[in-house]
Amino acid sequence: MKSIRNSLAELGKLKTDTCGKDFLLTWEKAEDEIRALLLVAEILSELHRAGKPLRVFDSGLAISIFRDNSTRTRFSFASAVNALGLGLADLDEEKSQIAHGETVRETANVISFLAEVIGIRDDMYLGEGNAYMREVAGAVQEGFDRGILHQRPSVVNLQCDIDHPTQSVADLLALKRHFGSLEALRGRKIAMSWAYSPSYGKPLSVPQGIIGLMSRFGMKVALAHPEGYGLIPEVVALARRNSAKSGGGFEVASRMEDAFRDADIVYPKSWAPFSVMQRRTPLLRKGDREGLKALEKECLANNARFKRWECDEAKMKLTRGGAALYMHCLPADISGVSCAQGEVAAGVFERYRHATYREAGFKPFVIAAMILMARVKNYTAALRRLAKD
Amino acid sequence: MKSIRNSLAELGKLKTDTCGKDFLLTWEKAEDEIRALLLVAEILSELHRAGKPLRVFDSGLAISIFRDNSTRTRFSFASAVNALGLGLADLDEEKSQIAHGETVRETANVISFLAEVIGIRDDMYLGEGNAYMREVAGAVQEGFDRGILHQRPSVVNLQCDIDHPTQSVADLLALKRHFGSLEALRGRKIAMSWAYSPSYGKPLSVPQGIIGLMSRFGMKVALAHPEGYGLIPEVVALARRNSAKSGGGFEVASRMEDAFRDADIVYPKSWAPFSVMQRRTPLLRKGDREGLKALEKECLANNARFKRWECDEAKMKLTRGGAALYMHCLPADISGVSCAQGEVAAGVFERYRHATYREAGFKPFVIAAMILMARVKNYTAALRRLAKD
Amino acid sequence: MKSIRNSLAELGKLKTDTCGKDFLLTWEKAEDEIRALLLVAEILSELHRAGKPLRVFDSGLAISIFRDNSTRTRFSFASAVNALGLGLADLDEEKSQIAHGETVRETANVISFLAEVIGIRDDMYLGEGNAYMREVAGAVQEGFDRGILHQRPSVVNLQCDIDHPTQSVADLLALKRHFGSLEALRGRKIAMSWAYSPSYGKPLSVPQGIIGLMSRFGMKVALAHPEGYGLIPEVVALARRNSAKSGGGFEVASRMEDAFRDADIVYPKSWAPFSVMQRRTPLLRKGDREGLKALEKECLANNARFKRWECDEAKMKLTRGGAALYMHCLPADISGVSCAQGEVAAGVFERYRHATYREAGFKPFVIAAMILMARVKNYTAALRRLAKD
Repeated sequence: MKSIRNSLAELGKLKTDTCGKDFLLTWEKAEDEIRALLLVAEILSELHRAGKPLRVFDSGLAISIFRDNSTRTRFSFASAVNALGLGLADLDEEKSQIAHGETVRETANVISFLAEVIGIRDDMYLGEGNAYMREVAGAVQEGFDRGILHQRPSVVNLQCDIDHPTQSVADLLALKRHFGSLEALRGRKIAMSWAYSPSYGKPLSVPQGIIGLMSRFGMKVALAHPEGYGLIPEVVALARRNSAKSGGGFEVASRMEDAFRDADIVYPKSWAPFSVMQRRTPLLRKGDREGLKALEKECLANNARFKRWECDEAKMKLTRGGAALYMHCLPADISGVSCAQGEVAAGVFERYRHATYREAGFKPFVIAAMILMARVKNYTAALRRLAKD
Repeated sequence: MKSIRNSLAELGKLKTDTCGKDFLLTWEKAEDEIRALLLVAEILSELHRAGKPLRVFDSGLAISIFRDNSTRTRFSFASAVNALGLGLADLDEEKSQIAHGETVRETANVISFLAEVIGIRDDMYLGEGNAYMREVAGAVQEGFDRGILHQRPSVVNLQCDIDHPTQSVADLLALKRHFGSLEALRGRKIAMSWAYSPSYGKPLSVPQGIIGLMSRFGMKVALAHPEGYGLIPEVVALARRNSAKSGGGFEVASRMEDAFRDADIVYPKSWAPFSVMQRRTPLLRKGDREGLKALEKECLANNARFKRWECDEAKMKLTRGGAALYMHCLPADISGVSCAQGEVAAGVFERYRHATYREAGFKPFVIAAMILMARVKNYTAALRRLAKD
Repeated sequence: MKSIRNSLAELGKLKTDTCGKDFLLTWEKAEDEIRALLLVAEILSELHRAGKPLRVFDSGLAISIFRDNSTRTRFSFASAVNALGLGLADLDEEKSQIAHGETVRETANVISFLAEVIGIRDDMYLGEGNAYMREVAGAVQEGFDRGILHQRPSVVNLQCDIDHPTQSVADLLALKRHFGSLEALRGRKIAMSWAYSPSYGKPLSVPQGIIGLMSRFGMKVALAHPEGYGLIPEVVALARRNSAKSGGGFEVASRMEDAFRDADIVYPKSWAPFSVMQRRTPLLRKGDREGLKALEKECLANNARFKRWECDEAKMKLTRGGAALYMHCLPADISGVSCAQGEVAAGVFERYRHATYREAGFKPFVIAAMILMARVKNYTAALRRLAKD
């Protein structure tokens, strides 16, 4: 438990102001807050490894709203809230009356009377997911201000159109553990590259989350994608500014190979072009099936031009010592395994399979840390109590 | 916590016999039991506001059976059982085998071996919902009597065809808090009025629950609806008797305006005509889609004759000082917001929006109070312990 | 609580090695382990009857994966995990991405970071259910060995193609309680007989589980079924070997009457012919609807030849003293109640209805016992603590 004591000591030196707040975008959080979040997640993980209970709450509700399918985020959230002692209540929009003309404002309040946290996944429509989370946060704030809610639950972004903070922070924690410290990441090159997938319309939140967060810790971020597959321009600009400030670097390449060259870390992953997402959103809203089919056909045809964007052995050889760390948020489209041709060659994936599982393993503890820091004023003292138990 | 001490003292003076019992209709409960229920709910709410845990159970299951969509009742029940320390298990009839010929009697027993409470919502078919709850209650009673169940779970009515006790008691609590005491309600006029909605087939349980409960506390109850939109005659007769006994009043008006005149409280809400519900039930049972469509068409056409039954500013002006309290169980059909024309004008609703949210906020605590009083013999002592913690 | 003290004393004499293990087939468990399992389940049941909490865990997740509809097993599992203090998380494959090409290996790990137990029901396809459970168990074992999982969750078979251990152990416990002791079962005749049902394709796991388990305790097992309705030959062979070893008997009859003659216990239940299940599996895998329809038609026609295989009063008269104990896993196809003609005559079922409910009542405690013995090294000490509370 020496590592826990060290982490607790380090935690004491950081300045954070997270109690009662939401977690919507990593770049809205101060660097100290991100550092503290990593430490809290590490402590919770180490306590769990040591068989110690993580219960902090006697009761209380954690609400989840998943507007898209999810396995690992759903279970990560369920695991985190259970470990802390909260009960989970899923707002299943099919079973609820939310579809029948209820306003977000009203629903947010009437479900939240005993809620500590609301976790939301809403990543389908560009310009909507994060906005929806802010609408919910605004509604419960208003409810609290008007004496409707006894407490103001915190909203946690479980993936939106802009960012995927529980993923990117778990990834950062995986890197911290892999390389030994956050300081050891300074100067490391991370290649966040588009990769080919036979599917269409994957959200932009992972690549945006990665470049928006990793750029803050002195890393050299290389973003690569085919022409026309750009991310939200504001997020790219933010990553560029972050890099300049943190003493790292930022470049955009038009070939996977260029990004991979001398990279310490590679993150090859498919996403839909920003411009396509922009065209898709009004079609989805109108329920224009014909339009959506035509767009899908066009996109898949366009995608097919970039089948060479696969993380294969040849490209891995270009990385530093041919031994970059391969990362993925899972599930990966593995060539010859989960699809005929995909994001990553089977041999490459197999070599890093356990590493990607381990990477995923940080997510429940990151979510638990987000909740703990948002709900418990003196979370360091709470962790000390857990460590003593 | 002075208010909690006062409430506890007041509670000690009331005679109740609720342990091991169900909560199926408010009018099956003695007045002292309703008064105690309000006090227990208030105490739980105040304890929660003060940040005190409400946990009374170490473990145990609360089963929910929702035979209709629900958001706020679902979350109110989930919140209440979580706060008390119970786990929630939803009997999803689609996923279970209940549809495949199992009898209610058998299912009620085999799901209840570790259950403390069974919450049921079944409000669609006239003559069926409350009867189903009694069937379940009878089955678990038999199971307990025959040594099959170690304990006999209590059934809580989360809305049926006759009553909606968690709603009406929450509404009564909202009135008690708004006017200062139950005694202050004496002589107040409450207008329970039908209102126009573009939808069809809303249950009768809310208006019936309101007139059946409010008539017991000396209020002047004015029920208003268009011709042909009467409630279950037995419930109207009961409300009339209650009013006579409690020293209040009871009248049926045929115009919203008449009910609103000098009202202290207005509750404008759509419901389906009793006679239509009676015709609909056999059609639903037979699965007669054509018959149902024809009936819906006929009803919507009939409904459309009463679009003027909207709670608008002009009608609100008729109330006492033009400032009656507007109530609604939510979601309301708000003209120009959730529909073109509905139950309430947007301006009126907006003025009372926070009040309706606050009204909804009593429901989880009312449900928790129902469960506590049904499961814990000396619930007052349990509350004292929670207050001291 | 004398019975609890006696059971605890008896438990202390048994040698078990269950901690960290799965529960996949009863015949993989030593006789002492089955005896201990019965004792632990009895103690938990008696503690619950005495109103004592059964909480052993502070937090932790129990994952359920139901690949078939279920009411009583679902609620038994939910009840058991709640009583022990675990939270339930259901992997709903419709809502998750498991259908989108994820491998079992990956999913098993990414959902298990905080899991204590994974309960699986997968009984549809011959040769698949138990194999799937082993695949999941292998995946989390690999995850634990590679440091991905802090703990290796135990897999519990909630019914597969081969065995239904939570059912057969609950049935054995019902027999132990009915006849007074396991020793009192020695020499008793149990008739596990096929029975007619208007439905098609019921799993083989219950009859296989019954003959595989009851044959270990000196009982005379009589298996009866029409020609062509045989069980998996390896399981029949195993039951025969078990009987020889335990000093019981094993016979296969071709008429329900022969099995019932002088039986102490009868278990009449429908199942699909092994050979049909073998033909059905590839059809299901191919999604061959026409083929499935043709097979169903053929089978129902064949089934109809055996409508006389009903547990009626005349056949009950053949049993020892005309008073054998009737058992069923529920729901039974009751002639004239749940179907026109089925497995059991209404009068017979009604006479044993409470007994079958009581039989079902052991299941939650058997599951809780399986989890406790798989997760808590010194489970006897844990039970002692619960008994003292």
